Formats: sequence, C-alpha cells, structure tokens
Amino acid sequence: MIKNGNQSFNFEKKIYIADTYSVVGPKENSGPLSSYFHKYFSDDLCGKTSYENAEQFMCTTAAEELLMKNNTIKPDIYIGGDLLNQIITTSFTARKLNVPYWGIYSACSSFGEAASVASMCVEAGMKSAVITASSHFSTAERQYRAPLELGNQRPAWAQWTVTGAGAALISDTDVNKNGVMIKGITIGKVVDLGVTDTDNMSAAMVPAAADCIVAHFEDNSIDESYYDFIITGDLTSYGGELLCSLLEQNNIKIKSKHLDCGALIFDTKNQHVYSGGSGCACFSTVFSGYFYQLLCKKAIKRVLCIPTGALLSPTSSQQGESIPGVAHAFRAEVE
Amino acid sequence: MIKNGNQSFNFEKKIYIADTYSVVGPKENSGPLSSYFHKYFSDDLCGKTSYENAEQFMCTTAAEELLMKNNTIKPDIYIGGDLLNQIITTSFTARKLNVPYWGIYSACSSFGEAASVASMCVEAGMKSAVITASSHFSTAERQYRAPLELGNQRPAWAQWTVTGAGAALISDTDVNKNGVMIKGITIGKVVDLGVTDTDNMSAAMVPAAADCIVAHFEDNSIDESYYDFIITGDLTSYGGELLCSLLEQNNIKIKSKHLDCGALIFDTKNQHVYSGGSGCACFSTVFSGYFYQLLCKKAIKRVLCIPTGALLSPTSSQQGESIPGVAHAFRAEVE
Repeated sequence: MIKNGNQSFNFEKKIYIADTYSVVGPKENSGPLSSYFHKYFSDDLCGKTSYENAEQFMCTTAAEELLMKNNTIKPDIYIGGDLLNQIITTSFTARKLNVPYWGIYSACSSFGEAASVASMCVEAGMKSAVITASSHFSTAERQYRAPLELGNQRPAWAQWTVTGAGAALISDTDVNKNGVMIKGITIGKVVDLGVTDTDNMSAAMVPAAADCIVAHFEDNSIDESYYDFIITGDLTSYGGELLCSLLEQNNIKIKSKHLDCGALIFDTKNQHVYSGGSGCACFSTVFSGYFYQLLCKKAIKRVLCIPTGALLSPTSSQQGESIPGVAHAFRAEVE
Repeated sequence: MIKNGNQSFNFEKKIYIADTYSVVGPKENSGPLSSYFHKYFSDDLCGKTSYENAEQFMCTTAAEELLMKNNTIKPDIYIGGDLLNQIITTSFTARKLNVPYWGIYSACSSFGEAASVASMCVEAGMKSAVITASSHFSTAERQYRAPLELGNQRPAWAQWTVTGAGAALISDTDVNKNGVMIKGITIGKVVDLGVTDTDNMSAAMVPAAADCIVAHFEDNSIDESYYDFIITGDLTSYGGELLCSLLEQNNIKIKSKHLDCGALIFDTKNQHVYSGGSGCACFSTVFSGYFYQLLCKKAIKRVLCIPTGALLSPTSSQQGESIPGVAHAFRAEVE
C-alpha cells in the first residue's frame, strides 16, 4: 500500500468489486433508476410487522442474494453500517449471515467506510469481504425527526431517506471477470462549519465532501480530469451546487463531472421528496445498482465515489451541538 | 497475514501497542485498580453541562494525552466507538483530533474491534493508528434504561456502566520500547441464544465469548496453556462462571486463567455496582491502565483479550427482539 499525502492510500494488490446487489422500496422503484436495481419490494413493510424488521429484511436480502449469486466465495468477513441506533439493522443481518463481523458507522457515508475497511483487509491478506449499507425512510423519520403520523411539514431543502440496501463483494479475485477495482481510498476527516439545522443535511455534509475531494486531488497530484465522474452520496442538486462553489474557491472545477446519488435516485420534481434522496442506502443502492453496471460495461472507466455523512444524533442536536460532516472516498476503476 | 481456520488472522509484521492512556471517573478511581489509571476526574460531569459532554471530554482527553505523550507520532487514522446513539462521543472526538477517522461499533467489544481494524491497517501498510473506546454510567443509563432521577431498582445481575475512556497507539514502530505486540486476532461472529432480559447482559454476551474462544483455540491449534491470562470485557464474576461452564461442555478449561475486567474494576461487594462493571470503557480502561502495564513490565507475557458486546438497541428490545452478543479477540504478547 502506498500512502500519498495525509489521507490517501493506494493499493498494491488488485482489489476487485467482484459483484454487487441492490434492493429498494416502492418509491425508489418508481424513480428514474428503476430498471437498474436488482430487486424491489412493492410494500415498504416487506410484509413484516415493523419498519425496522423491513429494513433488516432488505439488508439481509441484499447480502444473501449477493452471496448466492457468488456461491463459490465464502467471505472472510462481513462489514456494514446503517442509520439506526446501535446499527441494529447491520448487527441483525450479521446474526443471519453467520460470518465474522465488524460493524462500522459513519452515517450516510457508511458504504464508503465499509468499502475502505474491506479494501484494507484484502490488501492485508484477506481473500474477500461482503459489505452493506442500508436505510429506510420510515425508520429514519421516527428515530431522527418525528412520528410519521404527525404529518409534520418540512422545508424545501429537507431530504427523503432512501428505503433499501446495497451490498458489494470486495475480493482479491475477479470471479465474474467484471474488471472493476478499488484502486485507492481517501479517508475523510470530520469537518464542522457550525450548521445546526437538522433539516439541512446537505449544508452539514458539503464542507466534509469538499475537504475530502481537495485532499484526494492534492494527495494524488491529480485533478478532476482524471475521472469520468465524481459521485457524491446524498447532497442532492442543492448541495451539489454548494459543493461546486465551495470547491471553486480552491480553484477546483468539478461541475461538469459531478453527479449526486440523492439527485439521481428520485424524480425530484414529481416524487415529492423535498430536495432529493438521502440515507446510507442512497449511495449504496445507486452505486450497486446503477454505476457498477456502467463500470462493468466500461461505459465509464474511472469514478471517484464520495458517500457523505452527517454526524448528528437527536440527543446532540437537542443539546445544541452543531452537525459535523464526514466523507470517505474510494476510486472505482476499470481498465 | 496468515489466516488460520475460519476466523483467525495472525500478522506477519510486528504490530506494536506502542502506548496506552486511561481516563476514569470518581467511582472507578475508588475501585481496586485506582493506582493504575493514568488520569481521573473527581466529578463525573468533568465540569461540563451534560453527561454527554463529559463523556466526550474524557474520550478526547484520553486520545489527546496519548498523542501528547507520543508527539513524534502523527497517526494515519483514528478508529473508535462508544455506546451512544450514532457513536456521537467518538465522532465529536474525531472532530477535535482532526485525524482521518473511521467510526466502528460493536457495543462493549468496540475496543477489540478497533484494535483489530487498526492492526489490519498496519499490516496493510499504515504506520500508526490511535484507537479509543468510551462509556459513561449516566449517558448509558438514560439512553438504554431509564432516567436516573427515577431511582429504578434493578436486579442483582444487572451491571454498572464504567465511566471513562481508554486509548491505545497501534504502530509499526515500538516508539517506547515496551515490546507489546498484537500477534493476531479472531474476528467474532454474532451469536444469539435468545436472551431477552435487558438487565442480563452477561447472559447475552457469554455465548459469543465462548464461541470466539473456541474458534480461537481451534483455528490456531492451541489451548488455554498458551496464555498467562484470558481476559474478557464485561461478563462480571457471574458471567465468568457461565462462560467457564459453557466452555467446559467443549472440554475447554479456562477457569484458572480467566479474568474479567468487569469483575476487576470495582469492589463488587462494597461499591454498589450490582454484579460488576460493563460498557466500552470497562475493557478499554482496564486494559489500557492495568494489563498494558503488566505486559510492559513482563509480569505477564501472553494474554488473550476478548472484549464482549451485547447488540441491542432500546427499540429492538421494545419490539421483542432477543439480544445477540459478539466478541472480538486479540492476542497481546511481549517477547
């Protein structure tokens, strides 16, 4: 492994994203990326007795279907995270999978952290890891905001938590000959510019995304021209504009290369999702469903993936704390 | 890195626990290990306005004091976890440290996971990582159980969450010439035998601890005679007895080698702590304060460390779910 600068690590081994699997709910399946997801549920309860059970079922389904598709692989480890208190979705998925397990948490950037930790494990000598990141609109709303039954109004810059789960198989072997590799990672720092509006996650996350992109380019002595696309997690179009203007202050112009999963997953104008999608599953399903297929087809060859997270808890916000952000970047490339 | 069996990885590089730091509250400092901790606060609010702020201050203090003691080292990464929703203590510590950050979560076994992930990073090529695990009696009580002001009675087998934080510097360089290494890890699986009593964390965690110990011995073709001590996280004496009898069913007899941090940190008879200590800080402070010093002095040379965690959330318990456990083992050895 080669360390560049302060935050970036490029791998010496070939570390493959050997396969992916995405599971979404009905609203996500009515959006523009519908045809790319592997599986959808037409009922966001998935026939279960609680939304928490439904989220757990989606996450378990994503991991199990991925492992069934690749049944020659027995993963060394399962790594994942979600938004629920004590990452209970992921822990209960681990109970079902019966694979050695590390729980991770970095809010909506959890897929980025999971991919990074998994890559590090393969670089150190593991053969393969299965990773997931999941979220559910109804579990997130009642935990972070208010009971759905209240029908609270929210501002236009609020976001809609994606219901679903994305899974990936990180491996030293390219079992499906897709050729998609994680070439390197840039580990994010926690950045806090003092945002306190719990409806404005984009503003809380943008500084961390910008910080991570600046570090990635400086550490690796590259610029946006290296990549076909620079893909953030859940900033939405509104946050994407903030990001581009913040980066322009550093003379970095990513506007023509920038895409955001929160802007892509829903038809923001017609699906009543406020400014767009959010949640751990926003990046994980769009990457596992959409971008991974584009990489496999070599329609795109180099993408910088930067899932973004807001590090708040209801308690921290109620106690008057501001909301720090974090973003973890990984380079997904096909030769 | 050499994989043995299904869950165990032994490192080819020399990976040192170069230094540690422990911070505790007043009750812990009145216990039998008082003289071993690096720092204590006589006020469990640490002069802050909330217990959450106090926990954060303790965690930040542990990490900062450790880095100040070792100021020739600039860690590549900070890895840590805690019990609060969205691991907010650790994330806010990361905001202060300004070091690339991965948040992890495996309840009270978080120090074991953090040490394992950090070792994996050093094996892959990083130079050093700082890790922490923290908890606070008053933040845990009000989040997991009931407001302290209610003065609820609890059963004799309940536990007392340790107030404090433990930090360690995992490095490829033995900067202080202590000679203490992490030779290998055994990554735990989630094990659930159906315990539903949220006051009986020991019973929920014991099956996972036993599973991890059985895997460790089988994977490495060793038995308890290899170690001076086998140290669990927070099973207390009561859980320790359960563990030993569960292992005896597998013909593994660890009783003469077994110690538990939850049994050691308090004077269980006189300190009114129910059956003993618990929490992320139970293992992290006792290891960082007590056992690390014994290893440095070579009073003990080989210990198997197995912090133990119960993977519940208040929501999962209220929804009738059972409580799975997990345990992550690492081999701390000095030559």
